[in-house]
Amino acid sequence: MSLDASKVKVTRVETPSKPRPNDELVFGQTFTDHMLTIEWTADKGWDVPEIKPYGNFSLDPSSCVFHYAFELFEGLKAYRTADNKISMFRADKNMARMNKSAARICLPNFEQDELIKLIGKLIEQDKHLVPEGQGYSLYIRPTMIGTTNGLGVGTPDRALLYVITSPVGPYYKTGFKAVRLEATDYATRAWPGGVGDKKLGANYAPCILPQLQAAKRGYQQNLWLFGPEKNITEVGTMNVFFVFKDSKTGKKELVTAPLDGTILEGVTRDSVLELARENLSSDEWIVSERYYTIGEVEERAAKGELVEAFGSGTAAVVSPIKEIGWNGNDITVPLLPGEQCGALTKQVAEWIADIQYGRKEHKDWTRIVADLN
Amino acid sequence: MSLDASKVKVTRVETPSKPRPNDELVFGQTFTDHMLTIEWTADKGWDVPEIKPYGNFSLDPSSCVFHYAFELFEGLKAYRTADNKISMFRADKNMARMNKSAARICLPNFEQDELIKLIGKLIEQDKHLVPEGQGYSLYIRPTMIGTTNGLGVGTPDRALLYVITSPVGPYYKTGFKAVRLEATDYATRAWPGGVGDKKLGANYAPCILPQLQAAKRGYQQNLWLFGPEKNITEVGTMNVFFVFKDSKTGKKELVTAPLDGTILEGVTRDSVLELARENLSSDEWIVSERYYTIGEVEERAAKGELVEAFGSGTAAVVSPIKEIGWNGNDITVPLLPGEQCGALTKQVAEWIADIQYGRKEHKDWTRIVADLN
Repeated sequence: MSLDASKVKVTRVETPSKPRPNDELVFGQTFTDHMLTIEWTADKGWDVPEIKPYGNFSLDPSSCVFHYAFELFEGLKAYRTADNKISMFRADKNMARMNKSAARICLPNFEQDELIKLIGKLIEQDKHLVPEGQGYSLYIRPTMIGTTNGLGVGTPDRALLYVITSPVGPYYKTGFKAVRLEATDYATRAWPGGVGDKKLGANYAPCILPQLQAAKRGYQQNLWLFGPEKNITEVGTMNVFFVFKDSKTGKKELVTAPLDGTILEGVTRDSVLELARENLSSDEWIVSERYYTIGEVEERAAKGELVEAFGSGTAAVVSPIKEIGWNGNDITVPLLPGEQCGALTKQVAEWIADIQYGRKEHKDWTRIVADLN
Repeated sequence: MSLDASKVKVTRVETPSKPRPNDELVFGQTFTDHMLTIEWTADKGWDVPEIKPYGNFSLDPSSCVFHYAFELFEGLKAYRTADNKISMFRADKNMARMNKSAARICLPNFEQDELIKLIGKLIEQDKHLVPEGQGYSLYIRPTMIGTTNGLGVGTPDRALLYVITSPVGPYYKTGFKAVRLEATDYATRAWPGGVGDKKLGANYAPCILPQLQAAKRGYQQNLWLFGPEKNITEVGTMNVFFVFKDSKTGKKELVTAPLDGTILEGVTRDSVLELARENLSSDEWIVSERYYTIGEVEERAAKGELVEAFGSGTAAVVSPIKEIGWNGNDITVPLLPGEQCGALTKQVAEWIADIQYGRKEHKDWTRIVADLN
């Protein structure tokens, strides 16, 4: 059976909860009243989708999700627009990536538009819990786990696709706060022939220890380097962008690593690239997806050609960078005078927020899923 | 609180199950009546260990094991000896490796000997279910998962260590059956600076798709190659050994890849190396942990210098290899005339079985944990 949103079975909580005050929202710590679950078996395909009260799963200790990391997830957000509707941002990109992640670890694919409809129906149940205000949103976490019982290492014949949602506040509560990164070459996040471009659980747990080690030395996140060239790939759990300015031509370049199989295909990354190509004058700017190294960053910083740098991801949208520890030195990344970010970082954040909160239309990037009027 | 076996709380099933006939045992498909669980919190450390009826876990959908692969496991076996005792094989090695795996993903460490004692007590409860006969054993699966609720990516502050056991039969029911491997360079199992030397769930799910692709072409497993040199690293989920014979000197060499951080530190690998060094005459044999490539295997096969090859792991102990697909050709690996393995493969299997089933003593490799007399 293929995934069919029209068959959804809805069981509502008896007493809907009240929205928490905005200042009590912590990322991914509290969830809305309902969740979406859909079971899959190799025999029968996708079962009837269920929207039901948020609650625990009961799983056998031999379930393959506990042993062999048959698990993947997505992260996207829904926003309360100025006219009091709920809008999802680029859900089609997340669904496509989720299917790619699933295929890579032999978990089932699904009809993408049906899952978007189901997430819409889930949000509709809890729409009063979507917080209001710039920077506030509903974080949506689609997840798929293998649920085959037994310790043989093989293709799962059972899976559970589920979606939980968490009302969240801005990543930076009191405006941007630029971070210090440690350029990391002793630990490797992703490699050619690996799975670093997929949103698998497997890519996350191994990154915590290097982060703790960086934190001990006073850096908040790792700037992940790759290979003997020390290519810059990602920062923490985000994609990363640098801006250089050619001191001879005066032309600026926005650079990020190319999607070569080691880089997560970030939806925010894609949005930044597309908006930059549309909005920045090509007389003044080049937008590049190319390899670049920590050596280039160091060299161009020394020449005064490093303009700014930021991470990009769904949680923070953009995350400005102020310093990079490398080889015993700190490379200083410029910020706007008296501010905690660069000019483009700020501009990109505005471009994206305008679309997310419905103040500007952009192609088919948003989809209204509920109406609070 | 540190892990303390003496505090264990035992709740027995009401009706112990009867042993299944040996011919119905399938690896990791059926489990004994009891399991061991120990909860850990950052605040209080290890809680009271519990041995209780095997049963489901109840976990929050936001639990970090489902999203970020905070999970690791071990695999070891207990054997029914000729004098009707139950003996565990090299459990200390597995406990040490388990702690290394846990440390790598910021899960808690534990007192190794206490966990061995607890596993012994678990086996004691179900000792009548340990099957009898050469090749039969009780497979033991210690597992640790992060159980922190919430979607922030960070060090788990809650974990669950648990052990389940499964009565198993010989990997090869009717004697050895040599396998065909596909030498795989397009997918990469492990990388320097990665976690391929740890027994993390994260290393397993990504390996299924390449195995299915190899199976489509008629090969049972992947022979994992690494780097531009195409070094041979592992086979499927096992370590791998090759035997070469120098046609000038007549001397044989048993070769496996060195533990450079990309190779699982297999207990069977270690046992094979140690027993080979002890038992093989150094006039006739060299035992090497060194880099070697698929090119060397191809070249030496062409010269008639390839003698045999086998995988090594807890489940199969040794797994003979008969053919390796590479570059559109099949490299033939010799087998004993009319048999499905090479001479050393057979010998190694006997050496190890003699110790496991208590027919020979070897240092402190075995520990009696129960007595059926």
